[in-house]
Amino acid sequence: MTISRTIKKHLVTSSWIRKMFEEGKKRKEQFGPDNVFDFSLGNPCLEPPARFNEVVHALIDDKTPGQHGYMPNAGFETVRQKIAAYLSNLYAKNFTASDIIMTVGAGGALNVVFKTFFDHDDEVILLSPYFTEYDFYLDNHMAIPVVVGTKPDFGLDPEIISNAITDRTRAVLINSPNNPTGRVYTEKELIELADVLMYHSNRLGRPILLISDEPYRKIVYDGIIPPDIFDIYQELIVVTSFSKDLSLAGERIGYIAVHHDITDKDEIMAGMIFSNRVLGYVNAPALMQRAVSYLLDETVDVSIYQRKRDLLYNSLVSFGYEIVRPQGAFYLFPKTPVDDVEFVNALRNENILTVPGSGFGGPMYFRIAYCVPDRTIEMSLPGFERVFNRYA
Amino acid sequence: MTISRTIKKHLVTSSWIRKMFEEGKKRKEQFGPDNVFDFSLGNPCLEPPARFNEVVHALIDDKTPGQHGYMPNAGFETVRQKIAAYLSNLYAKNFTASDIIMTVGAGGALNVVFKTFFDHDDEVILLSPYFTEYDFYLDNHMAIPVVVGTKPDFGLDPEIISNAITDRTRAVLINSPNNPTGRVYTEKELIELADVLMYHSNRLGRPILLISDEPYRKIVYDGIIPPDIFDIYQELIVVTSFSKDLSLAGERIGYIAVHHDITDKDEIMAGMIFSNRVLGYVNAPALMQRAVSYLLDETVDVSIYQRKRDLLYNSLVSFGYEIVRPQGAFYLFPKTPVDDVEFVNALRNENILTVPGSGFGGPMYFRIAYCVPDRTIEMSLPGFERVFNRYA
Repeated sequence: MTISRTIKKHLVTSSWIRKMFEEGKKRKEQFGPDNVFDFSLGNPCLEPPARFNEVVHALIDDKTPGQHGYMPNAGFETVRQKIAAYLSNLYAKNFTASDIIMTVGAGGALNVVFKTFFDHDDEVILLSPYFTEYDFYLDNHMAIPVVVGTKPDFGLDPEIISNAITDRTRAVLINSPNNPTGRVYTEKELIELADVLMYHSNRLGRPILLISDEPYRKIVYDGIIPPDIFDIYQELIVVTSFSKDLSLAGERIGYIAVHHDITDKDEIMAGMIFSNRVLGYVNAPALMQRAVSYLLDETVDVSIYQRKRDLLYNSLVSFGYEIVRPQGAFYLFPKTPVDDVEFVNALRNENILTVPGSGFGGPMYFRIAYCVPDRTIEMSLPGFERVFNRYA
Repeated sequence: MTISRTIKKHLVTSSWIRKMFEEGKKRKEQFGPDNVFDFSLGNPCLEPPARFNEVVHALIDDKTPGQHGYMPNAGFETVRQKIAAYLSNLYAKNFTASDIIMTVGAGGALNVVFKTFFDHDDEVILLSPYFTEYDFYLDNHMAIPVVVGTKPDFGLDPEIISNAITDRTRAVLINSPNNPTGRVYTEKELIELADVLMYHSNRLGRPILLISDEPYRKIVYDGIIPPDIFDIYQELIVVTSFSKDLSLAGERIGYIAVHHDITDKDEIMAGMIFSNRVLGYVNAPALMQRAVSYLLDETVDVSIYQRKRDLLYNSLVSFGYEIVRPQGAFYLFPKTPVDDVEFVNALRNENILTVPGSGFGGPMYFRIAYCVPDRTIEMSLPGFERVFNRYA
């Protein structure tokens, strides 16, 4: 056999997602793409704001030499300054360019953080249900995911997290607004989590890192404002991207922001800049770095996603589905009345493509990515109702 | 200490390059940027072809939905089709889209290949002098670099390669046109290498992979045409980028092309697409994928680099430097009459920034990246002469 044993193993375990994807493709060919309702991927359906196009045109006309060449591995200084200014304003704290590293999306950012911090067999606490790409990212750097549950409303459970912390625990990874649940952690929850982390950091004599993965931060509803996490815990690294709030998922642009007072900051920054280089990213894409630096106050029209949430959530609840009402992101994570894989297969037979909760460490649930045209939601409703009634 | 032991170690070993870079920055502040002659980085000095700007304007005006969103992890099908057609024409072979994966530059491509193929402690043969980022890329995936020498003219030495092949050898990595030497391997050399690899593949009962890193393929001089490597060896993976030939180094766009007849091709492609995803690249930047697909026949004006090579090579040789005349890329790799670090430090005192050969596994040489303005070359010549005369 030619490929590595690890990849071979992963191809087997990840193959049911590929199978789903391929079956979906087949169904679209068979029934026509308009008759297959694809809720499987978190690929934004909104186009980037109009100003994105204006900005790129202007950047391409800017004839300053070297704009498409290598720059420092952390990214353009001017771009990082603008992001620091944006964050300083958002969090009423003093960020500088040296607190920021531009990255190849949040996926690139997480790999940079993981490579920089984790030694072989270091433990990282994940809260289920969670985005299971984290498992692969940790495996890249030989760290061990330790998965603990959340409360029935998907809120943080400080006690269960506290109990999971061992001598090997290096970090806790949170994701809020959450994929797949849409949950936004409250200030109270984050303060309780910080108390737990501070207690154990003191006990262990070294800081436990909090990594906050926040690509959906601006995709929030009902007037909710995510809490100021930089005010709550200092051993903090935030990773984010412009994939969702500017609908630039394919352009691979994001950044890492560290807390100004994080322990060993200079070494951490040097390590992460080095990791960004040697992981083969080298630097975040140049044109997109400059583009987003002019769009930090822009967001796609979140009210459109909120309308989609309301339409789908209200309809499914009226059919009898049990769902924690999501406050952000663009996912619903309803309970399944039977085994989630069976339920998702039944939906698929109605040409409705979703993902079993088992794929997120959350069996007996399933994920609906509602970043799709209204028509897809409307046309799918009878199928959602039929399948629920069959099993209820 | 907060960061991982590996990164901490790497930061120490790689810190002299950072020190050089910082010293260079300091000198530019002290003497003015026009009085510091920076030959340290392979950052193209030419701008992308004018057609690049036209293409990006047109792509941004194209209102087809989803152009900035996720696409298959291998890249846009249409883009891969165009690259397959380009390669089919170049190599008179039948490439298809399924032989191509779009990547975050050649650095991203190499990490994808390494992660897909190598298990812990697999050996990979590198030919010195070489681009030492390869060491870090291999270390990411726990493979072991086995470095062997080349001939005095930096040509391939099949015997020395053959002797280095063990039961653990999984691949040989070549880079032609070469960084740092500018050497372009001949057809005869590649056939001799292929013979060695075929002999050992048969002996070991499994294919030894040839990985050809070719970002400088179009940067060649004196009418040289790099040989058709796809005709020479079938267990072949080519990685490349548009960093040098389109001067898009900062945009991070490249691709992997596999030989149509490589053993276990379907598994290899599935593995590499998976690796592209889970290494956090997810996919190559969307806009740049589409842009380069319209620019496959474009190249920066290579005659400008040839002129720079001639100017610098002829001048240095006239001063007494001993140099293998480079046939491609934009580097000179002259011998140093004394220890290379001492020699490079002496040049630095003349405000001439270069890199010691030791940084490329080639002590008693140094690298000059001549992708700089003519003026930089011209102004630096007296300093190059003075330092040589001091040590000769």
